[in-house]
Amino acid sequence: MAIIGIDIGGTNIDIGIVDESGKILASGSIETSAHDGPQACMKRIADKANQLIEQSPANRKDIAGIGIGSPGPLDLAAGAMVHCTNFPETWGDFSMTGALAELMSLPVEIDNDANAAALGELWAGGGKGIDDFVVLTLGTGIGGGVVANGRVIRGSKGYGAELGHIAVTGGGPKCGCGSRGCLEAYASATGMINMAKQLLKTDQYNDSTSPLRNCAEDELDARMIFDSARDGDPMALEIIAKAGQTLGMAIGTLLNVFNPQKIILAGRMAQSFDILEPHITQAAKEHAFKATFETATIEPSTLSANAGLIGAAAVFAYEQKQKSND
Amino acid sequence: MAIIGIDIGGTNIDIGIVDESGKILASGSIETSAHDGPQACMKRIADKANQLIEQSPANRKDIAGIGIGSPGPLDLAAGAMVHCTNFPETWGDFSMTGALAELMSLPVEIDNDANAAALGELWAGGGKGIDDFVVLTLGTGIGGGVVANGRVIRGSKGYGAELGHIAVTGGGPKCGCGSRGCLEAYASATGMINMAKQLLKTDQYNDSTSPLRNCAEDELDARMIFDSARDGDPMALEIIAKAGQTLGMAIGTLLNVFNPQKIILAGRMAQSFDILEPHITQAAKEHAFKATFETATIEPSTLSANAGLIGAAAVFAYEQKQKSND
Repeated sequence: MAIIGIDIGGTNIDIGIVDESGKILASGSIETSAHDGPQACMKRIADKANQLIEQSPANRKDIAGIGIGSPGPLDLAAGAMVHCTNFPETWGDFSMTGALAELMSLPVEIDNDANAAALGELWAGGGKGIDDFVVLTLGTGIGGGVVANGRVIRGSKGYGAELGHIAVTGGGPKCGCGSRGCLEAYASATGMINMAKQLLKTDQYNDSTSPLRNCAEDELDARMIFDSARDGDPMALEIIAKAGQTLGMAIGTLLNVFNPQKIILAGRMAQSFDILEPHITQAAKEHAFKATFETATIEPSTLSANAGLIGAAAVFAYEQKQKSND
Repeated sequence: MAIIGIDIGGTNIDIGIVDESGKILASGSIETSAHDGPQACMKRIADKANQLIEQSPANRKDIAGIGIGSPGPLDLAAGAMVHCTNFPETWGDFSMTGALAELMSLPVEIDNDANAAALGELWAGGGKGIDDFVVLTLGTGIGGGVVANGRVIRGSKGYGAELGHIAVTGGGPKCGCGSRGCLEAYASATGMINMAKQLLKTDQYNDSTSPLRNCAEDELDARMIFDSARDGDPMALEIIAKAGQTLGMAIGTLLNVFNPQKIILAGRMAQSFDILEPHITQAAKEHAFKATFETATIEPSTLSANAGLIGAAAVFAYEQKQKSND
């Protein structure tokens, strides 16, 4: 048995043939070219998938179905994006699952990329064999996926697990969502870059040789902040501390709400887990009950660069399992 | 079919015979007298329950089982309290379910009172027919119960849904749990009384005729704060506003995490829902996504004084249903 995983991003789409244990048998990538419209894009996905099946040791008849991880919010029943800000309007309400099912003659399941990340962990990562865990995906924004009682938490309309928009303070910096004081406004790459820009407006580090002070503002990125922090730059260390503390505070809340066995940090920024970890752990310990803090480990994802593909394939594996349980 | 519901409190224990629709057929109350030890207490519960069966239209053979709502934290498998601060040490690790099962020759299920409140709503209250909702019990402290995917969220060790200990700010007043900035430190009766005491130490309302200023400090209670607010007392209105705002902020987080259809406010303080509601709604709207805010209604429980008994009976009804699904 094998599954086709399709990880849709704004720029590229990763496609892979994944076996039942979450191992990638063949994979490739195409450009999203979203402006060409969703139907043309689905056609190119199908062509690439067919080509990958040929390259993989799997036979066509071994493929059980297709799983898609897509930017949200999604209308899950329709298999379509709902006014996704990073895609042209032509994608809105277009049934990606319907189009691919027809092109490939296979059953298709879809979920948003954060839930897909959680399902990937459940299937083949740190969540394997565990009924209660939380995944935070740390990148440009912060996404989340929650598994409780062995099932993913989507909420009544599929908009749940927006863990980047846990309110960590009543005021605070404005978040991309329009609110203030969200976790994402502090601890995402965007939040950290904005903190750097704010600090650069003050006198606080103006005698600094920090690379953050000595580059054009639009060159600032999270990688540079982490690298500077590793070099001991005080301004970068302040930003990292604030990001880690707010992450730890939100994790404290998540521990008290879900009493999970694991908090898994995924996404690009989780590669810098070692430098965030002391701040995260201290704040989580301060804000969680002793019992819920001690129940859980806080750890980086082990799925690394393949997390997106494995998550997409896991969406199909999970839905098949739910249907066989019903 | 009928169920015996047992709602254990520190002072009194309510016992009721409840039919399958959540209607109370007979009910009564005994003193907890916790210092007499749990075995003697279970014996008195059984005696009272047998007496109530006689008084009710139900026959002994109609009784399917017993549900207990108990102060937590609980060891659910053992049916025992785990170091519960309001009960003598003799209660720790004593199997209440085991003792009652033997005394009554009936199957017994137990859950903590906050989860019982959620299960009561699921069975016979505002959560009936709904798969995703959140209950906040507002009293001396703040408890919580969450139903997601139609199932109660307990977490891996049963310590989950501690919604009173959502962190609403990084600093703030000290909470009974040892942390700072928990929802409970602002919006519980205890939190509101503490806010009043803090305000009385300032000059802010020292020309006030507020009843809050003109009583002994140990006479201050939440009822007095709500009554004074209704009379237009500015100090009481400030406290209510802060409690409502922090509740709304935590509810905003809960909307983004669970995307529920309802937030149900239960417990003694929910009787003053009308005066808290404008603050709650405004802050929840500010902190939640438009989509998650619009998915949910925020409403007081309709189970009123019977919520504890119905919740306790619902614990049994729910567990029976889960077992028949497995």
